[in-house]
Amino acid sequence: MTDINKLSINTIRTLAADVVLPWVVLQWPIFYFQNLLPVTRQIHTGQINRDRFVLSNGHACALQYIMLHLTGYDVTIDDLKQTPGHPEAHLTPGVEVTTGPLGQGFANAVGLAISREHLAAVFNKPGFDLFSNYTYVITGDGCLQEGVASEAASLAGHLQLGNLIVLYDDNHISIDGNTELSFTEDVLKRFEAYGWHTQEITDGNNDLNGITTAVENAKKVTDKPSIIKIRTIIGIGSKNQGTEKVHGSPLNPDDIANIKTAFGFDSSKYFYIPDEVRQYWRSFSERGQKAENDWNDLLKSYKEKYPEEGADLTRRLSNKLPDNLAAVLPRYTPSDSALATRKLSEAVLNKIADIVPELIGGSADLTESNLTRWKTAVDFQHPSTNIGNYKGRYIRYGVREHAMAAAMNGIAAYGGLIPFGGTFLNFITYAWGAVRLSALTGFRVIYVMTHDSIGLGEDGPTHQPIETLAALRALPNILVLRPADGNETSGAYLAALKNPLRPSVLALTRQNLPQLQNSSVEKTLQGGYVLEEVDNADITLVGTGSEVSLAVDAAKLLKSEGIKPRVVSLPSFELFEEQSLEYRSSVFPDGVPIVSVEAMSTYGWDAYSHAHVGMRMFGASGPYKEVLKKYGFTPENVASKARETIAFYKDKSVPSVIFRP
Amino acid sequence: MTDINKLSINTIRTLAADVVLPWVVLQWPIFYFQNLLPVTRQIHTGQINRDRFVLSNGHACALQYIMLHLTGYDVTIDDLKQTPGHPEAHLTPGVEVTTGPLGQGFANAVGLAISREHLAAVFNKPGFDLFSNYTYVITGDGCLQEGVASEAASLAGHLQLGNLIVLYDDNHISIDGNTELSFTEDVLKRFEAYGWHTQEITDGNNDLNGITTAVENAKKVTDKPSIIKIRTIIGIGSKNQGTEKVHGSPLNPDDIANIKTAFGFDSSKYFYIPDEVRQYWRSFSERGQKAENDWNDLLKSYKEKYPEEGADLTRRLSNKLPDNLAAVLPRYTPSDSALATRKLSEAVLNKIADIVPELIGGSADLTESNLTRWKTAVDFQHPSTNIGNYKGRYIRYGVREHAMAAAMNGIAAYGGLIPFGGTFLNFITYAWGAVRLSALTGFRVIYVMTHDSIGLGEDGPTHQPIETLAALRALPNILVLRPADGNETSGAYLAALKNPLRPSVLALTRQNLPQLQNSSVEKTLQGGYVLEEVDNADITLVGTGSEVSLAVDAAKLLKSEGIKPRVVSLPSFELFEEQSLEYRSSVFPDGVPIVSVEAMSTYGWDAYSHAHVGMRMFGASGPYKEVLKKYGFTPENVASKARETIAFYKDKSVPSVIFRP
Repeated sequence: MTDINKLSINTIRTLAADVVLPWVVLQWPIFYFQNLLPVTRQIHTGQINRDRFVLSNGHACALQYIMLHLTGYDVTIDDLKQTPGHPEAHLTPGVEVTTGPLGQGFANAVGLAISREHLAAVFNKPGFDLFSNYTYVITGDGCLQEGVASEAASLAGHLQLGNLIVLYDDNHISIDGNTELSFTEDVLKRFEAYGWHTQEITDGNNDLNGITTAVENAKKVTDKPSIIKIRTIIGIGSKNQGTEKVHGSPLNPDDIANIKTAFGFDSSKYFYIPDEVRQYWRSFSERGQKAENDWNDLLKSYKEKYPEEGADLTRRLSNKLPDNLAAVLPRYTPSDSALATRKLSEAVLNKIADIVPELIGGSADLTESNLTRWKTAVDFQHPSTNIGNYKGRYIRYGVREHAMAAAMNGIAAYGGLIPFGGTFLNFITYAWGAVRLSALTGFRVIYVMTHDSIGLGEDGPTHQPIETLAALRALPNILVLRPADGNETSGAYLAALKNPLRPSVLALTRQNLPQLQNSSVEKTLQGGYVLEEVDNADITLVGTGSEVSLAVDAAKLLKSEGIKPRVVSLPSFELFEEQSLEYRSSVFPDGVPIVSVEAMSTYGWDAYSHAHVGMRMFGASGPYKEVLKKYGFTPENVASKARETIAFYKDKSVPSVIFRP
Repeated sequence: MTDINKLSINTIRTLAADVVLPWVVLQWPIFYFQNLLPVTRQIHTGQINRDRFVLSNGHACALQYIMLHLTGYDVTIDDLKQTPGHPEAHLTPGVEVTTGPLGQGFANAVGLAISREHLAAVFNKPGFDLFSNYTYVITGDGCLQEGVASEAASLAGHLQLGNLIVLYDDNHISIDGNTELSFTEDVLKRFEAYGWHTQEITDGNNDLNGITTAVENAKKVTDKPSIIKIRTIIGIGSKNQGTEKVHGSPLNPDDIANIKTAFGFDSSKYFYIPDEVRQYWRSFSERGQKAENDWNDLLKSYKEKYPEEGADLTRRLSNKLPDNLAAVLPRYTPSDSALATRKLSEAVLNKIADIVPELIGGSADLTESNLTRWKTAVDFQHPSTNIGNYKGRYIRYGVREHAMAAAMNGIAAYGGLIPFGGTFLNFITYAWGAVRLSALTGFRVIYVMTHDSIGLGEDGPTHQPIETLAALRALPNILVLRPADGNETSGAYLAALKNPLRPSVLALTRQNLPQLQNSSVEKTLQGGYVLEEVDNADITLVGTGSEVSLAVDAAKLLKSEGIKPRVVSLPSFELFEEQSLEYRSSVFPDGVPIVSVEAMSTYGWDAYSHAHVGMRMFGASGPYKEVLKKYGFTPENVASKARETIAFYKDKSVPSVIFRP
């Protein structure tokens, strides 16, 4: 260990003691590995080939923010005094992914590593290693206990992601106490079983040369991800070092003073950084700036030699979609065949996969059900497997919904790619921890969720979503799109692609649906629109997805009785809420009572309707038509609910769903 | 292999081909192991010491239902023709747990195995092995890829659950195709790393003696769970055997006929069971009946020798709570200290843990935050660890939220125990796959979820629930309880305990709350009640949990201006909805506009209010008072919203939230 590294470590240890939550950083000497990286931590995150760093044990946030400060990112000493609880990628430049919920960062890193391998395979040319970065992760015991990390580790081993290097802080302490309470497995043996390269450092508090060597070794292993287990003492220097007391609560002032003295610092100084440490760390920024300049020069020459690829890459990096996207989307008229929206989704993918080469998709082992694989797709696999290659854009995620979603967040975070992935709508909740972070961070991830209601039939109530759309609609910053036919399915994809700062969920049917009169790709972007209008209407029927055609059929019944129904399709609450008051009140005019129909929980539908046909219980196993009938999703029952509602409001004023306090 | 076993196997294979979903069973010869079990598959599920069988790969449902038929459960041939998509414990006797969502059954089995070890430790006496059963699981590649199963496997290894025996059907096929596409890890090595005993059968299609021996070996290993990897060919006998074609879609009639002929059966007969097979299997029922009689006799003698333990066990098995439960619950008056509801929850646990010995609790490594460990608690640990024993009732689940919830389902399924477990409310979504099955199956599982809003402060938006309560309220058959103070916290526990057929979620604060005037244990059981009444009210303020005292403070402000506010506490939508129309309309009388206040998504609140103070976005990191203020959770802002709402309805009729079409 050189003196300046030792001084840097001790500076970080004492700085950490000063941060609002001083308990988080002291455990870490491994920050040291950061100065081993060739192209890490650019001041400008714009250089896509920068090394990626993920602090998966996000509660050690202070470590990352202190390092961002030292390396010249826009994190001031004053910012350090208000370090957030966990790293926030949506707020702080230099934080690649938002972490904290345990296991997420680890799984994000698998996505970052996939992106790097894929883009290298697509764009690198002899003499032009445009994509050559490494993906570094610091993780702790907590992350490694989480299922999402296990799933991601198995996937990373299968995909042989050589650029992924994980440093495992094995400090034997979690919040409850020593890991002997609950976590006694042989972690490295488990990772060997996944196909990882493993190494161990027994004295992580002091053996910095060992860490250096291990990282260099890991880089040499190009066909396996690496994990380095580093035995450390949590809270080193504190009188409570090595116990959970330094994990769960702040240190007291005396202890902080002792730590500073022990490390040779002035205990009366706060947020003190020795000049030589500042200077030393500035050299990393300079190295980073040089790496960025070199890469930009490389890209320039690349564009000259490979103008087509260069233009594609430039377009992708600027987040611009191909101009002809809307034009190629499939469009339908009522004379076209009835089809399931999952099938219509497949048609969209077949149309756009080649013209949007940044799309990289997959499924959690439900390819034939989700219909997520387009005709010309090649699997993303290690070339040695002979069943695909790294240029391939179809990812076999296996039965790993949570890792799929978290990896997609990582893919989106890397840049230059738009990930989508499929499973049954009901199983998006298996992945919720990651879906929530797609929304919080604002990643353009497209969830292609099929079998979207009790209309899936035979699989039964374990597979039939009930609460799922309510949960998604209550989640901020995510688009929920439930298209009713072919035009709306094309519109849903257009909405998802055109929103670079939020994820989208496409809820798609297993069962066939007719192509509707008056449905529209463009109107879908407004979230809701009138499908059938009538003067002096008695009732508005509003539906989503498969229940829009049901509403149309119910309207026919009502018309035959002389009742005047309007029909509204509402594929997305979120997009609709963004429309003007004027527009919204034209869709739901005052004075006309509204009945909603959606084969899902009615919870939340009071926002747009006065009465509901929906689910208040779990579904059942059976042929889908019988199941739908059992729960009242028939034209007759919807018409009946409409008549009741009209009668109820006969002598009463109808509350407006648009004009509210 | 004896001839009758071979004939039984072929009978099941051909029966399976006749079941509505004929693709599921053919892969299985391992059903054979079932006749190795000493006390399995009682006709009467009432005998608690029966061996447990869990079909974790629930899509192979037909296998289980055919075996239930053969062993004399109430599953007829006609029922077989309508076999559900996945095993449904809530509908079919003999199905221990509802499976299908992959990985759940495996993790349920860990809970079943915990219950068996715990109850044996508590009740067994020399000569009285009341609890001695084994827990058998069949699992497939899909389950073993799921994070929840990984978490559960690590936990089971740590807890050294020797009664757990897993048969892993290694058929190399998942829905997407060969497992080489996505699942190439060394599964047995991984389980060795978890601390499991592992064995392998290379020809599972034929080597039934090998399976017998392996199961016997597994039973001899008493301090480790066991997994037996059994290499099989999926769809054996079909022309598509060994491919995903027999996994994802039904066989055609010709192929079914071929299979029957190949196995020596008449291809023109459907649902045919040879008499000798029927007779042979009947002997298992008889053996089961004898085992049950023997156990009942044993229990009778036990009660004579150990009357106290015997009475406790009898009470537990009849699902009766101790009589004095309500009497011992803590009760508060406004002069008592302000406390966080998590702290009040701890007080309840300290009061009831000893008088409700069937309570078995834990936390996903957040014990000091959730406050789930009562003073006299002993850890549930293998006795060799010297940090607890199997009599212990506090489970250190580790950072494994999903496995915790799924294991709790298994604990509840076993009988004689009431599991509870803690994490932050936000992370109940990590466990959603299992929470959903608690609700669907109707297990009394108590989720003790603390840090229940942006009021948790410093941990920031990654840990602050927004959508969570909406998701839970939209889920059928689960109680969501958000108590506002000490009395309501006691009431919430009472509600949870008194509902044997549904799970409950307790949403508890990190921050202190005052003890309210007029709050009540008993009124909490009504879900909602009037806290402050006034004649000719101008406005009703309704809140839950931490926002009830905020509503009270806002009401004070309004009163000081001459406005007449009512205040309602609504700890549980579900319980409130079960009250009479008369009662509900007394809580929310017509003509009085309502403002809700809840530091959570407003989605769904239109059901009980006209205007909302709530969250439409993610929260932020910071001290909790600042965070709450930032998002408008102040008496001033609530009062302001109330004034706006009163003004809005000045010349309009106020829509009733109770009387609706």
